[in-house]
Amino acid sequence: MKEVGIGIAGFGTVGGGVLSILRSHAREIEARLGARIVVRKVAVRDPEKERMVDVDRSLLTTRYQDLVEDPSVQVVVELVGGTTEARRLVLAALEAGKHVVTANKALLAFHGDEIFRLAQEKGVDVYYEGAVAGGVPVIRTLREALASDRIQAIHGIVNGTTNFILTSMAEKGEPLATALAEAQRLGYAEADPTLDVSGGDAAQKLCLLAQLAFGARLAPQDVLTEGIMGLIPEDFAWAKEFGYALKLLAVARRSGPNGGGEDRYIEARVHPAFIPGDSMLAGVRGAMNAVLLRSEALGPTLLFGQGAGAMPTGSAVVADIIDLSRNLLSGSPGRVPLPPAQPLVRLRSHEEIRTSYYLRFSVKDAPGVLARIAATLAGHGISIAAVQQREHEEEGAPVALVIVTHQAREADLRAAIQEIDAYDTTSAPTRFIRIEQV
Amino acid sequence: MKEVGIGIAGFGTVGGGVLSILRSHAREIEARLGARIVVRKVAVRDPEKERMVDVDRSLLTTRYQDLVEDPSVQVVVELVGGTTEARRLVLAALEAGKHVVTANKALLAFHGDEIFRLAQEKGVDVYYEGAVAGGVPVIRTLREALASDRIQAIHGIVNGTTNFILTSMAEKGEPLATALAEAQRLGYAEADPTLDVSGGDAAQKLCLLAQLAFGARLAPQDVLTEGIMGLIPEDFAWAKEFGYALKLLAVARRSGPNGGGEDRYIEARVHPAFIPGDSMLAGVRGAMNAVLLRSEALGPTLLFGQGAGAMPTGSAVVADIIDLSRNLLSGSPGRVPLPPAQPLVRLRSHEEIRTSYYLRFSVKDAPGVLARIAATLAGHGISIAAVQQREHEEEGAPVALVIVTHQAREADLRAAIQEIDAYDTTSAPTRFIRIEQV
Repeated sequence: MKEVGIGIAGFGTVGGGVLSILRSHAREIEARLGARIVVRKVAVRDPEKERMVDVDRSLLTTRYQDLVEDPSVQVVVELVGGTTEARRLVLAALEAGKHVVTANKALLAFHGDEIFRLAQEKGVDVYYEGAVAGGVPVIRTLREALASDRIQAIHGIVNGTTNFILTSMAEKGEPLATALAEAQRLGYAEADPTLDVSGGDAAQKLCLLAQLAFGARLAPQDVLTEGIMGLIPEDFAWAKEFGYALKLLAVARRSGPNGGGEDRYIEARVHPAFIPGDSMLAGVRGAMNAVLLRSEALGPTLLFGQGAGAMPTGSAVVADIIDLSRNLLSGSPGRVPLPPAQPLVRLRSHEEIRTSYYLRFSVKDAPGVLARIAATLAGHGISIAAVQQREHEEEGAPVALVIVTHQAREADLRAAIQEIDAYDTTSAPTRFIRIEQV
Repeated sequence: MKEVGIGIAGFGTVGGGVLSILRSHAREIEARLGARIVVRKVAVRDPEKERMVDVDRSLLTTRYQDLVEDPSVQVVVELVGGTTEARRLVLAALEAGKHVVTANKALLAFHGDEIFRLAQEKGVDVYYEGAVAGGVPVIRTLREALASDRIQAIHGIVNGTTNFILTSMAEKGEPLATALAEAQRLGYAEADPTLDVSGGDAAQKLCLLAQLAFGARLAPQDVLTEGIMGLIPEDFAWAKEFGYALKLLAVARRSGPNGGGEDRYIEARVHPAFIPGDSMLAGVRGAMNAVLLRSEALGPTLLFGQGAGAMPTGSAVVADIIDLSRNLLSGSPGRVPLPPAQPLVRLRSHEEIRTSYYLRFSVKDAPGVLARIAATLAGHGISIAAVQQREHEEEGAPVALVIVTHQAREADLRAAIQEIDAYDTTSAPTRFIRIEQV
């Protein structure tokens, strides 16, 4: 039987998952591939460390370079993490004419240009299904199933940690700190959850999706990024009252100067959003991930699954290894082209985004307050779709005034809020959450 | 620029969609493929007929054989429908060494063996993403993304017509006849809706899914198939009361002798089912389709999209044409193997299926009726999870008694119902609906 030799760099959670799937599903893989996948080397930092999955000690090395130099390794699987060592390894592997599988979103979000360019030059493949929403086959779908289509919009729940926290807040009425602590206890959030709760992780993933879907070239810092830390149980109560769910969304969509779906510009943003309570994305609970694609011919397509973990991400990595092996065995590397070298679209200024908004004002309960706020909004061209006010609990305490607007320009909204927040009848900074019709 | 020549047989709704996508997205397709897809011939029954999409009259022919004989046609796209002419055309095309794309589920469900065998012999590809749930990339996902995984279960909403009808019944409380008439008026149901409402269409699709997922070889008549015609608004009201949604499901799953996930047997069935109201499948509304896959490593994966229509199915067909073209251009046909020639699993007897059940009894309101029914169920090893009874509306009228059971064997349940239906206190045949934990 033919063999495909692979080298695995990094032997943490995902590495363990990859090895265990390759081993336990060897029979299925051989049957479907007509060849055997053989692990020739595993590069680790500490060969003495205890591992969840046993591995033949003669395969272990501490030098990543050993994978690159081994002529029997055809595919290098990068599971090192981070962007320094991983970048060095991937570039060296490509330079040596080896194919690469990686699950490293940060690496590709920050250094994708360099990596894809070198891969193209060397005529080898870089596959990365595991880099975005491990258990959701979205990279493959964008690359292949939608190859004939023109994508209009992506709306994704691509960070399991924050979706777990928001689900707890919505279903149990918990404050964020409680839900976060629970997520940490269960292993859904890290000790330092900054990258997740800030939206940064989702922004990295959005860069990869936008590149495949639109031919965009974005760095994470280009994405309008707002995290979940400011959300309070009251926001969820209001969402419910208006028939919405509250989710951290990653959004990229074609965006013309008047909000139309013009071809040459996209919006790219990550932020909490109100979405219709009966939408499919609203049903994505706990640590699950989902990506909703809207395209010209197919219409809406939703892909849902586990976002992270040894087995889901491991499975995505192994599917990539198999796909690459098919290319190798049939002598057709480069079968599916990498994303275009020149950006096909430009990023629209965040100021120009148009959505509807949920606005939560904290105001003194005095006559004329609502009238003044409404007049200020109107002065900035923002029209009101609904208003609600909560009874205040004690005499003299600030009351929550909630306004839902029709579509407005982000710059106009920010200007109006700045004005309103300066009033002496405003007790706390106004909170706004964008409303997305998904 | 390189060219791939295709011939299209059949120029109805989907054919029009295919041509219009090839034309309007030509630039994107060329960019992604590095080659041009050229339609060399279009075979139609009546060349004089008016079409939604214009086509160069010099390409038209009335002879399918012209596609097979044209050496410039490398891929034959079969959109004829039916199983007689379509089968003849596909076999002739394969025999001539041409690759085939088809969206014809009936053809593959009834003649897949013969077609796949010939394709393998000739070293050519048969692609059929459009045959199951057009806008949902489930064939590709089963073939590639899950290639490394072991699938445990498929639960699909794969018939848009019936899902549209059931959604109307659930949301508007309508009787079936009203919802069906509305579906016909809107073009979601055909004048003769038998194939859809009987579950037959879903059973054909399930055969294709089960083959890819489990290596099963099923004919549609092997699938336990129950349609939706017996459902009444009351069933939806009860579903809601118990926290369920009511959907027509296509189910295939590994099934051991004691209900375990043993490898060598599967269940295959299409029937109305109660599913948890907060599950993702419960959120699939109107004519949309979705397939939930459960696999060992990935866990649950749900794919959702439009099931039918010129553009969704056309888009799936064009994605297949592009995929095949990649194989052709890189000289790697047969890159992804066709389903195995020998079945890898056997079908478990329908009598041995184990699920929980919703039972709706129509009984006389007399003392001891419930006790007798409960005793009969217990006598067949069926234990009760919940009981509810509706107040009868007029004195002496039959009352509805609803029982939800724990897991039971289908044969035991049928025996118990047969007994209960023979009682003089039973006013109408007992209705049962299976409950699926999706």
